[in-house]
Amino acid sequence: MSLGIKVFAPASVANVACGYDILGFALTHPGDEIIAKFVDTPGLRIAKITGAQKKLPLAVEKNTAGFAALKLLEYLGESDRGIEFEIRKKMPFGSGLGSSAASAAAGVMAINALYKMPLTKAELLPFAVLGEQIADGAYHADNVGPSLLGGMQLIRDNASLDIHRLHLPKGLFATVIHPHIQILTRDSRAILRDTVSLTQAVQQTGNIAGLIIGLYNSDLGLIQRSLKDVMIEPQRAKLIPGFYDVKAAALENGALGCSISGAGPSIFALSANSNLAENIGVAMQGIFTDLKIESQLFISKINQEGAVVM
Amino acid sequence: MSLGIKVFAPASVANVACGYDILGFALTHPGDEIIAKFVDTPGLRIAKITGAQKKLPLAVEKNTAGFAALKLLEYLGESDRGIEFEIRKKMPFGSGLGSSAASAAAGVMAINALYKMPLTKAELLPFAVLGEQIADGAYHADNVGPSLLGGMQLIRDNASLDIHRLHLPKGLFATVIHPHIQILTRDSRAILRDTVSLTQAVQQTGNIAGLIIGLYNSDLGLIQRSLKDVMIEPQRAKLIPGFYDVKAAALENGALGCSISGAGPSIFALSANSNLAENIGVAMQGIFTDLKIESQLFISKINQEGAVVM
Repeated sequence: MSLGIKVFAPASVANVACGYDILGFALTHPGDEIIAKFVDTPGLRIAKITGAQKKLPLAVEKNTAGFAALKLLEYLGESDRGIEFEIRKKMPFGSGLGSSAASAAAGVMAINALYKMPLTKAELLPFAVLGEQIADGAYHADNVGPSLLGGMQLIRDNASLDIHRLHLPKGLFATVIHPHIQILTRDSRAILRDTVSLTQAVQQTGNIAGLIIGLYNSDLGLIQRSLKDVMIEPQRAKLIPGFYDVKAAALENGALGCSISGAGPSIFALSANSNLAENIGVAMQGIFTDLKIESQLFISKINQEGAVVM
Repeated sequence: MSLGIKVFAPASVANVACGYDILGFALTHPGDEIIAKFVDTPGLRIAKITGAQKKLPLAVEKNTAGFAALKLLEYLGESDRGIEFEIRKKMPFGSGLGSSAASAAAGVMAINALYKMPLTKAELLPFAVLGEQIADGAYHADNVGPSLLGGMQLIRDNASLDIHRLHLPKGLFATVIHPHIQILTRDSRAILRDTVSLTQAVQQTGNIAGLIIGLYNSDLGLIQRSLKDVMIEPQRAKLIPGFYDVKAAALENGALGCSISGAGPSIFALSANSNLAENIGVAMQGIFTDLKIESQLFISKINQEGAVVM
């Protein structure tokens, strides 16, 4: 037996309008915690999961945090070491906020902390991605990258995890609203057509390029003109009642942009400061209230740290 | 009668691999010259075109330089003023090097110079775009933007001419080879499918984003990984005999990337310095020589000035 360690990995917003599958940023909250400790019984075991209403598997191989940790332990040659996880889900899942990614990031962070940080966060990333893949089926880092590394991350190529932290203007804030409706990531992916028009693809490349230039130059006007998703949002919006009204409310209240967070149903907006972020949140939540849809609101700056030992 | 002025507008490379329709850069040479002077006879007149083997129209309304100049003169309220152009085509047309764009840029630059620069270059851009539209049919600035303004320019949106000069690493060189085969821009556009796969669109957005980050950070490795066109090049490569061999020769000799210039048939490569650019050029030209295709080679740094009064 040993003294446990506790780690935190944050929720994240993926896609970010014009960055489908290649862009994501971390929130300061909500997020997942894992308490980990060495125990005498060999092997990794998930002793307890709280906050998940028994909807997440305790079986290590089927749990995103467990599988990510397992892969890392194999790499470290420590598969037989006795380790116990307590996972504290402190965020909604199936929300489009990167819940499984946060667990996977926390899983590898917990192991790394137990072993006194043999790997850098960048080196941990592939194991965390393998963990999230259990839940999602796809090998991609647009949630797990930000959750682990923090900041806004561009993944040029998911297969090779060619990932890059973006320069951001000071003061950038996120407003995220989670309406309490259910969308399965699987369904949200299945609804997408296999093709996009060449015109849409050209617009999307222009917008992602504009966004990055705008972020580098702190050009809020350019960021605002660029934060648009012409490829995916029009296909998924129908899954979220009131989406376009919520988006209009965010933009009318000064948002730089507003779109679906990950596969939804959460909706994010970015803005230039915390006052705007608060006002935008009130306006967005008002729409869902009018629709008699319960929702939870998160106001957060961009979390530059990502996963941390607490 | 008055003393004439002479302006120069350079050739340009559009598309630049991952930037179809939204990215272009200017070369130092070749380019077009226009000599302009006030004359007594009212109205704009193209007195002479050299270097075009009589393939370009003298009629002002049908000539890219003439039409661009005409639109600018209308804006200035000077349509009735007598002005005479001599256009010196000093670059191949139908080559994919932005010949009509260079003429249009030179046209507006010549008028602006005659009137002692009432407009900034940025203000001249819409008139130059209208000029190029005569030849091309499309309202886009990925050639005419760089030819007029210089540098490498990202056009987030062509309709609103939302254009941005990119930061570039020091020493960046272009190698451009023009094989003497004929492709009409019309045909080169007609060959393109209306749609691309979602997978291709995601890769292309990742690559354009990676390219801009790489350029800002002078990260040559990232630039190299990003300078790829998965959407358009595979469709157009068949129009250029030997294209893939030429590309392979460029990459084997240290090019950061190599793809079709504009609508082709010219092929460009980018590299980190002039030595590499020269070696790449020799290798590329060797392939065309083996195929018994005549070609013309241009080695150029990125032209940061664009159109100039000489």
